[in-house]
Amino acid sequence: MTVAGVGEFGLIDRVTARLTYGESCLLGPGDDGAVVAAPDGRVVASTDVLVEGRHFRRDWSGARDVGHRAAAANLADITAMGATPTALLVALCMPAELETSWAEELADGLGAEAAKVGASVVGGDMSASPTLTIAVTALGDLADRAPVVRSGAQPGDVVALAGRTGWAAAGYTVLTRGFRTPRLLVEAFRRPEVPYAAGPHAARLGATSMIDVSDGLLADLGHVAKASGVAIDLHRDAFEVPRQMRDAAQALGVDPYTWILGGGDDHALAATFPRSVALPAEWRPVGRVTDGAGVTVDGAAYDGPAGWDHFR
Amino acid sequence: MTVAGVGEFGLIDRVTARLTYGESCLLGPGDDGAVVAAPDGRVVASTDVLVEGRHFRRDWSGARDVGHRAAAANLADITAMGATPTALLVALCMPAELETSWAEELADGLGAEAAKVGASVVGGDMSASPTLTIAVTALGDLADRAPVVRSGAQPGDVVALAGRTGWAAAGYTVLTRGFRTPRLLVEAFRRPEVPYAAGPHAARLGATSMIDVSDGLLADLGHVAKASGVAIDLHRDAFEVPRQMRDAAQALGVDPYTWILGGGDDHALAATFPRSVALPAEWRPVGRVTDGAGVTVDGAAYDGPAGWDHFR
Repeated sequence: MTVAGVGEFGLIDRVTARLTYGESCLLGPGDDGAVVAAPDGRVVASTDVLVEGRHFRRDWSGARDVGHRAAAANLADITAMGATPTALLVALCMPAELETSWAEELADGLGAEAAKVGASVVGGDMSASPTLTIAVTALGDLADRAPVVRSGAQPGDVVALAGRTGWAAAGYTVLTRGFRTPRLLVEAFRRPEVPYAAGPHAARLGATSMIDVSDGLLADLGHVAKASGVAIDLHRDAFEVPRQMRDAAQALGVDPYTWILGGGDDHALAATFPRSVALPAEWRPVGRVTDGAGVTVDGAAYDGPAGWDHFR
Repeated sequence: MTVAGVGEFGLIDRVTARLTYGESCLLGPGDDGAVVAAPDGRVVASTDVLVEGRHFRRDWSGARDVGHRAAAANLADITAMGATPTALLVALCMPAELETSWAEELADGLGAEAAKVGASVVGGDMSASPTLTIAVTALGDLADRAPVVRSGAQPGDVVALAGRTGWAAAGYTVLTRGFRTPRLLVEAFRRPEVPYAAGPHAARLGATSMIDVSDGLLADLGHVAKASGVAIDLHRDAFEVPRQMRDAAQALGVDPYTWILGGGDDHALAATFPRSVALPAEWRPVGRVTDGAGVTVDGAAYDGPAGWDHFR
């Protein structure tokens, strides 16, 4: 059965029947708008869009995988502000000949990823389109804390990383070369493992700045350095190359640090902390904030690919 | 200059430089998420997507028009819940060869329409895509009131309409036949005139149900009737056919009531009120709620086109 066959309202009924709603969802789908709890009188909101052929391929990722990744990309943005995600809204544009099962499994993936943080899909919109497109808006709750922005890094701060980088990029390279293994890398591309709890933890610990690593560590720390008017120096020794990644890099003729320092899509969180903060295990020190501008590795400019521009 | 030429971050800089921010915007673009005021501890959220070739055509509407309409469609959903809009987030997918001026003028239209209700564009995302697509999420504030949902209509209630219907549909028909006039109808399609204030007013007056007329009056009142478990009967005499519309209908060989009763995209608001409520001029009585199911016109089934399915 295709989405054109069941029609807009039929598909909305099928998809919403599969969703479950978290505590923050005060009014779910079925009206002109949803109502979501915003307990401290503010709401954090972020939008990310995934376009077929640009952010995902249906022959590389299942519908459920794409749902997990679309949700993860947005939930990570909310946690990078130090907030806890509460809700997702999803605009889904689909070719009329798409199987309804694809849309249903996408919804399952979105819902399952959101449920990891107690959030839920509370609303959305659907339209036919020649290009399969998933635009997700995530909402979140700051729990009376100030948002952790990109502009607060101070010279002397420690740069720390929660989660991993390079895995999704390695999986992407594996897929582009026509391989389906190592499975661990490919799965990292299909469904990122985001350290969601580390975002609000960092806010409580007193992080001075934070960002979701989606364009690549060097590029994203470049955004922090620019917004804060500081320089950031990373310590290459802080990044261990895992065995599977080293083996794949060798087999594919790639420097694994181009994945680790330049690859996005794992949705790690990078933050800066005053030196006085005792960092818990989930936050691994990887560099220092200094006076100046730009991002260096062991004091020198890094000459690998710097990051990802969605028009190039 | 094309969007690929200036690149993702260059275009984001150009667009955000044109935006202004309302009172509800506590933290605007430039971080992983925006922060928006939600004074009563809840936020209303709604998402609507516009796809080129399906919802708009670049040869029929300028970029600024498309921005106005994309914002209006979302802001209307918020007001139909009885809430006041506070913020918009916009996911914009564009062909790499699109002129940057198109994206900039789109942002101007979005911002100008949002400013009518004191809201502003607080964040978004951009990506290249073969299909020009604009997904907008609107947020709003209920000011301590309960949301007005679709399921509250009661037998005996008065059905009332704020704003106009059929104008945008008439303009759309004019454009599909290759004409550019009457200008009044074409402009109604390009930039709907939404009775934003009527939504919160209706909530304060005690409306029992409300909906944004986007699929067509009969179709949208059908959603209300179904959700409320009631029947709705419209009085045809309550709908005057304006002169320009009558003339265009005659010239094009169309029954103007197919526009008035079946056309969406003007974003009128339809609501039901207890008979005891004294309706202000902006809310025009057009029918009655009764026991039963479905929507009729003067007691009989209406045999014109019933509404709009976005996959058909």
